[in-house]
Amino acid sequence: MSTAICHRAVLPYVYGKDEETVEIMLETKKDMIKKVELIYADPYNFKGDNWQYQLSDMYQTGSTATIDYWKIEIKPPYRRLRYGFHCTTAQNESIIVTERGYFEEIPKEIGNFYCFPYLHENDVFQAPSWVKDTVWYQIFPERFGNGDPTINPEGTLPWASTEPTSSNFFGGDFQGVINHLDYLVELGINGIYFTPIFKAYSNHKYDTIDYMEIDPQFGDKDTFRELVRACHQRGIKVMLDAVFNHSGYYFKPFQDVLQKQTQSSYKDWFHLWEFPVETEPSPNYDAFGFVATMPKLNTANTEVRNYLLNVAKYWIEEFDIDGWRLDVANEVDHAFWRDFRNVVKSVKPDAYILGEIWHDSLPWLQGDQFDAVMNYPFTNSVIEFFAKQDITAKAFAHSLTSVLHMYPTNVNEVSFNLLDSHDTPRILTLAGNDKRRMRLLYLFQLSFIGTPCLYYGDEIGMIGGEDPGCRACMVWDETFQDRQLFIFVKQLIHLRKTIPAFGNKGNFRFLSTDDETNIIVYEKFTEDEQIIFILNNNEKNSKITVPQLENKAVKELTTNKKSTFEKDTIISLEPYDFYCFKIVE
Amino acid sequence: MSTAICHRAVLPYVYGKDEETVEIMLETKKDMIKKVELIYADPYNFKGDNWQYQLSDMYQTGSTATIDYWKIEIKPPYRRLRYGFHCTTAQNESIIVTERGYFEEIPKEIGNFYCFPYLHENDVFQAPSWVKDTVWYQIFPERFGNGDPTINPEGTLPWASTEPTSSNFFGGDFQGVINHLDYLVELGINGIYFTPIFKAYSNHKYDTIDYMEIDPQFGDKDTFRELVRACHQRGIKVMLDAVFNHSGYYFKPFQDVLQKQTQSSYKDWFHLWEFPVETEPSPNYDAFGFVATMPKLNTANTEVRNYLLNVAKYWIEEFDIDGWRLDVANEVDHAFWRDFRNVVKSVKPDAYILGEIWHDSLPWLQGDQFDAVMNYPFTNSVIEFFAKQDITAKAFAHSLTSVLHMYPTNVNEVSFNLLDSHDTPRILTLAGNDKRRMRLLYLFQLSFIGTPCLYYGDEIGMIGGEDPGCRACMVWDETFQDRQLFIFVKQLIHLRKTIPAFGNKGNFRFLSTDDETNIIVYEKFTEDEQIIFILNNNEKNSKITVPQLENKAVKELTTNKKSTFEKDTIISLEPYDFYCFKIVE
Repeated sequence: MSTAICHRAVLPYVYGKDEETVEIMLETKKDMIKKVELIYADPYNFKGDNWQYQLSDMYQTGSTATIDYWKIEIKPPYRRLRYGFHCTTAQNESIIVTERGYFEEIPKEIGNFYCFPYLHENDVFQAPSWVKDTVWYQIFPERFGNGDPTINPEGTLPWASTEPTSSNFFGGDFQGVINHLDYLVELGINGIYFTPIFKAYSNHKYDTIDYMEIDPQFGDKDTFRELVRACHQRGIKVMLDAVFNHSGYYFKPFQDVLQKQTQSSYKDWFHLWEFPVETEPSPNYDAFGFVATMPKLNTANTEVRNYLLNVAKYWIEEFDIDGWRLDVANEVDHAFWRDFRNVVKSVKPDAYILGEIWHDSLPWLQGDQFDAVMNYPFTNSVIEFFAKQDITAKAFAHSLTSVLHMYPTNVNEVSFNLLDSHDTPRILTLAGNDKRRMRLLYLFQLSFIGTPCLYYGDEIGMIGGEDPGCRACMVWDETFQDRQLFIFVKQLIHLRKTIPAFGNKGNFRFLSTDDETNIIVYEKFTEDEQIIFILNNNEKNSKITVPQLENKAVKELTTNKKSTFEKDTIISLEPYDFYCFKIVE
Repeated sequence: MSTAICHRAVLPYVYGKDEETVEIMLETKKDMIKKVELIYADPYNFKGDNWQYQLSDMYQTGSTATIDYWKIEIKPPYRRLRYGFHCTTAQNESIIVTERGYFEEIPKEIGNFYCFPYLHENDVFQAPSWVKDTVWYQIFPERFGNGDPTINPEGTLPWASTEPTSSNFFGGDFQGVINHLDYLVELGINGIYFTPIFKAYSNHKYDTIDYMEIDPQFGDKDTFRELVRACHQRGIKVMLDAVFNHSGYYFKPFQDVLQKQTQSSYKDWFHLWEFPVETEPSPNYDAFGFVATMPKLNTANTEVRNYLLNVAKYWIEEFDIDGWRLDVANEVDHAFWRDFRNVVKSVKPDAYILGEIWHDSLPWLQGDQFDAVMNYPFTNSVIEFFAKQDITAKAFAHSLTSVLHMYPTNVNEVSFNLLDSHDTPRILTLAGNDKRRMRLLYLFQLSFIGTPCLYYGDEIGMIGGEDPGCRACMVWDETFQDRQLFIFVKQLIHLRKTIPAFGNKGNFRFLSTDDETNIIVYEKFTEDEQIIFILNNNEKNSKITVPQLENKAVKELTTNKKSTFEKDTIISLEPYDFYCFKIVE
């Protein structure tokens, strides 16, 4: 609502955060309101005709250039809640905010109040518990490691012998991944997201020929089973890529349509506009974009649904994979994804479902469809601030604060936060090859709310532009790896995994942002721990004082140096320097 | 969002209105923006690197005290849409509104724009087509007609011999309804909503004993089958009331729990807090409110789900009922309602699903759960304005405009618009027994967007306060019926059914509202028809000029009088007078 105070009893303003907690959010026009209290009680809590409500302070969880956000968690004893807001303006006026408008005093009639009717456990958004503590690593299988040259596809080039193109092959395979698992264990990641592995034509395999078969250039089902087992032995989860929006050109049902046309029993599997079906000069059927070789699947058709749902089940039941990443997820119908979730969770309740959506994804994150989406709004913000230096510290903080308030808290905690992927230039390239910026990017990503994902090779300094440039062969010769960067990333992952406040147990809050110096200060904190991060996203030496550090003893987590701050201690930072001060007393 | 311009790519701001049309809404701060154009195109419509978008004017669909609403319908040829907004301020400045914020010029990068990824027919909110043209009539079966005294429950009182109480019986039954169907046909209604008919203890039957049996005081299954058949013969749809949130005290599974306690095989059917389960002094289990005799059903339990879903199916398959009204619908889990919809629509695709929700109901109106909710926000507004005279004309228009923009257009078209019900005082009583106000209420309700529902007896002037006062016996002695009111309501229903613009084919727009006189002027219009309504909601004689009538020949629809307006013709209205001018040339 385009009003100065905004709330509706819908997501993301009110939701069951867990089976006993309701979280409520209010937005108010920046600086207009200085205090917000929630007015609330069970809807049937009456004495005579009087509803017996109580008031509790809401806390401000962030601000943008135009909005202040306020939140509160309530545990309603009977899982029902009626509520409103008591706002106090900067001028000490009271505004009572209800579903039926504004009042000067709290109205008696309970019908005025917002309604959260009942907290049902099965309506609560619930991602698998392991996801919060996962650090993902994305592997493009054709380019990670060639472990079995006997299955190289025809025309395979020597590893890294030339630039990646949209059509060349280097023979990456499952054995190559298995051979390098200890490298990943050393790095510390505990989840691998594989781009597609099913039988397909291209090197990227997004043009599926057979959803029930492994592409022979990667190995066979036994090798894949061995790969999953080897990952699980090392505590690494395995996520596959499901391309259910469209098939490849050589998918048998589509070939059948092309051959038999109106006589094909698969003609309802696609969105055909007319007969004869033609791919040239342009497809006369729905496709991914207008790509004739990627015909869109009709997921509303029962046969297609059953076929794809069986695929979803098969790879979990037979190979024990831990999750599905869903390609072009927003172009497939919601009804299909609801069925998909039911099927997946019925065979593996803690399987993870991740949608590829680049835009606002709230409709898919209501608990009935996905556990998470690829958080490109996060990606855009960090790229603009750290990599491209296109926005100032305040704009960055506002942008991130807005991203954090787009979705419920429990959704944010499992957001798939990536810096880059096989679909974007590599982050180091976007950062102008500046490794100092790259460090800030990793530090921010790995200390932020959500589950971070590293794109293979970034951690050793690989560069590459837009696809196919970003899909180069993994560099295994340590001489050409940036080992310092690797050690730094490894250290951050270790901090994330071992210090609760650093990782996903920590709440996040910006403490200060300075558009002159582009220094950002933020904290991560739990009830027991507090870490203050100071990042100098700036080409110049800068100085700052951080009042929150006053009279505190700290340990800098990346250097393990201890120190104590006095009042007004000036902290000096070199260009792109940073500190992670954990308060120790 | 509490910002001056508000849009998110979520409901109710963007949605598939039908299988080929996307409707988009923008909210702007009142009077800030004078023109809005949609910037849009297929997301893959590129020439080289340039996205080829087009611009179309959005139209202002209403305003409140703080918000202007703008809408547009687009038929994207490939069912995909990327879009943004070009707003022109009152000062002729351009503001480009995108998902990534505001720009002064249209940005080149398509990633900035909002995304409506794909219009899937099965994700479109689709209520049965017959609902739009239905005028409902609500019957409380114990009080409509006693047609078979042989099945009177013990202690039945002579019809209308005394005031209704929460425990007395008058023997209303199915035969009584059958006997009076011709009365309903004469009135013109074409849908009956029956409050519960299943075996229960009370006179209201909301405390179900057996969901598979008719309450013997109403008749048996044969009589019910006959009732449905008799209704269908007369073109009247039949909707039953499903009380799935809670059972009655004497529901066998609950009795089993009370008797066998921990040994009961039904103990997971309810939300029990502890053993022994006790009803006194207060229930130690979840209930409707804290009413011990209405234990809440655990709809997440598979047995309960299957039992209730079977109930939903049985009455459709066996008796051909046309819809379910769902009691306390918002306290049951969304997951259950999704299954419920699937089951109901699988046995009768055009069955209607109506939820009882008094508050903001968007989460249930996304297409996967309900076809409509009881539109109490509408009820509140018309009661405050016409019945209680508590708000002014402008406040009323703002309130109704806000109600109309809470939900998508296709949701509004089937909204269940009631003036009163068995749960509220009768509307005539709320209107201070003023029949003139009552006429305005009916005129407004029956010419508004949505499907109107009349509460039995209102149409002949019955009065009654809060439950149980509003549940008196239907008056069948014409001497005591207000026949004039009946004829008026009958006429309005006829107009609604025969003149497209009067009924649900017409768009609705306020033309003027005057806080001095409390006169409201609104129009209903289609491409071919235009009707201008003038309602003097006021104790005094008033005068008004309506520029939209200038130089028009009109027919007043309730009197059939023809006239022609000159420039500045002054229209005089007596207290609570009204005109419905259909433009005839």
